[in-house]
Amino acid sequence: MIERLVVIGVGLIGGSFALALKAAGAVRSVAGVGRDPQAMARALELGIVDEVCTTVEEAMRGADMVLLAAPVGQTGPILASLLPYLEPQTIVTDAGSTKCDVVLAAREALGGKLGQFVPGHPIAGSESNGPEAAMAGLYRGKKTVLTPLPENDPLAVEQVAKAWRECGSLIHTLSPEDHDRVFAAVSHLPHLLAYALVDDIAAKPHASLLFQYAASGFRDFTRIAGSSPEMWRDISLANRAALLTELDAYLAQLTTLRARLAAADGPALEAVYANAQRARRAWLEAIEAGSPPQTQPQDTE
Amino acid sequence: MIERLVVIGVGLIGGSFALALKAAGAVRSVAGVGRDPQAMARALELGIVDEVCTTVEEAMRGADMVLLAAPVGQTGPILASLLPYLEPQTIVTDAGSTKCDVVLAAREALGGKLGQFVPGHPIAGSESNGPEAAMAGLYRGKKTVLTPLPENDPLAVEQVAKAWRECGSLIHTLSPEDHDRVFAAVSHLPHLLAYALVDDIAAKPHASLLFQYAASGFRDFTRIAGSSPEMWRDISLANRAALLTELDAYLAQLTTLRARLAAADGPALEAVYANAQRARRAWLEAIEAGSPPQTQPQDTE
Repeated sequence: MIERLVVIGVGLIGGSFALALKAAGAVRSVAGVGRDPQAMARALELGIVDEVCTTVEEAMRGADMVLLAAPVGQTGPILASLLPYLEPQTIVTDAGSTKCDVVLAAREALGGKLGQFVPGHPIAGSESNGPEAAMAGLYRGKKTVLTPLPENDPLAVEQVAKAWRECGSLIHTLSPEDHDRVFAAVSHLPHLLAYALVDDIAAKPHASLLFQYAASGFRDFTRIAGSSPEMWRDISLANRAALLTELDAYLAQLTTLRARLAAADGPALEAVYANAQRARRAWLEAIEAGSPPQTQPQDTE
Repeated sequence: MIERLVVIGVGLIGGSFALALKAAGAVRSVAGVGRDPQAMARALELGIVDEVCTTVEEAMRGADMVLLAAPVGQTGPILASLLPYLEPQTIVTDAGSTKCDVVLAAREALGGKLGQFVPGHPIAGSESNGPEAAMAGLYRGKKTVLTPLPENDPLAVEQVAKAWRECGSLIHTLSPEDHDRVFAAVSHLPHLLAYALVDDIAAKPHASLLFQYAASGFRDFTRIAGSSPEMWRDISLANRAALLTELDAYLAQLTTLRARLAAADGPALEAVYANAQRARRAWLEAIEAGSPPQTQPQDTE
């Protein structure tokens, strides 16, 4: 049982964590801290938090767990602000979509108390935001990746893993580097591509004609371009190196495909399309079969 | 009332047209022609067609309307095969996703009877295929773009428009050139990008690790990469010039974005992301408001 949970940033991610733990009867009381007083009032009204704290000092008193759920660029300053009030029993974790930069910021901000910080990333989300979007079931059946540090006490890691399991999530473990490489490819690059496409179309002189004929394929392809620009700016910057690597690989692939298209090479185009269709189908079938993740050196389950 | 409709290619698109007209009581009998005997038998069993014809000659006898719903690369050969049996009252239309090449193929195949061919494109679809995927409601509330020819009798155009309206569709009119430019941007390019991304990831040595962490954002972004490779090979080739133009504009946009990312220019990245989010939100709001399409020179409604 978590006696006192502090959520810093009570939006979709932080709010859903609080609601899920409450629904599971796994937390006694939740204190919220956030930069937008209206959103915090709404979080209180919605029963996501039991108390809104205007200072970190007040929030941290007696806390046994703290979740950071703010854009990753704020991780360093927030951790630095917590440090003076970090009690020996308090475990701090985060929900950031990048991990190398978060670990670096934690190392700089927390110094000798780094062991109390267990980095994490729940693989769930939505293009909706704010406390109104929070829901107890957001993490049910979804993975949460932890990237524990050599400085972490295994009991601290287990406390964080347990909380996410109470939310219905499946715990995976990766190194921060592997985490960032993987999500650059399957999440950060697609976001950048979707934003780029919508911006590209919106900038054309005949944009209104184009949007008029955009249909459901376009809607789904660009759904992630509805996500928070501030959050994705931070993620892009934080995972810049891995994202550039993935973007360059994709640009090389598009350049090859462009040459095939210019040469009207039907069989080569069809081979790429068919390979993609097959790979995607196999992926969906594996998900539907609920197949356990394939064994990878760093996976724990 | 259409007395005898011939559908050539009874899959998602052709099958849904037949089912919608039947549901509206707008057709007396439907004859189907297709290259896959098993699919045709299934279409008969499902009540999509009333009769399966193994020759075009048999199918065309007494037809008042013919819908071509095969990959666009087959338009020329199919129209050439119809020509000897084209009766004076028969109107032929198509459902191809490209129009300049279809018009060119029709001009070559039909010669003096070109006026009997009214080119069309229903803006509806799904990544599912075959007669099993057909449904009477597929076109309800969706646009159908007609690109009439100078050779068309206005009454022939109206007959085709009427049939699509009976399916619940809203009729728009564009020139073939405008049609192809618009759909290169909002449909053909996104398909190519989605296929390219999945193929790119599937080719990496750690593909299985990557797919393991791909989540709902990836699923929606790549949904259109589940579409028929043969159909999209044909569309890519048929609309090659316009698609290359759009792909080049997008590559230029990605190259700019890459430079901003490499320079860690947060404000510039956020500006692109925020502009995309705003444009997409405005587009969705216009759809939800059911706002009539903005007035454009070539639109009829």
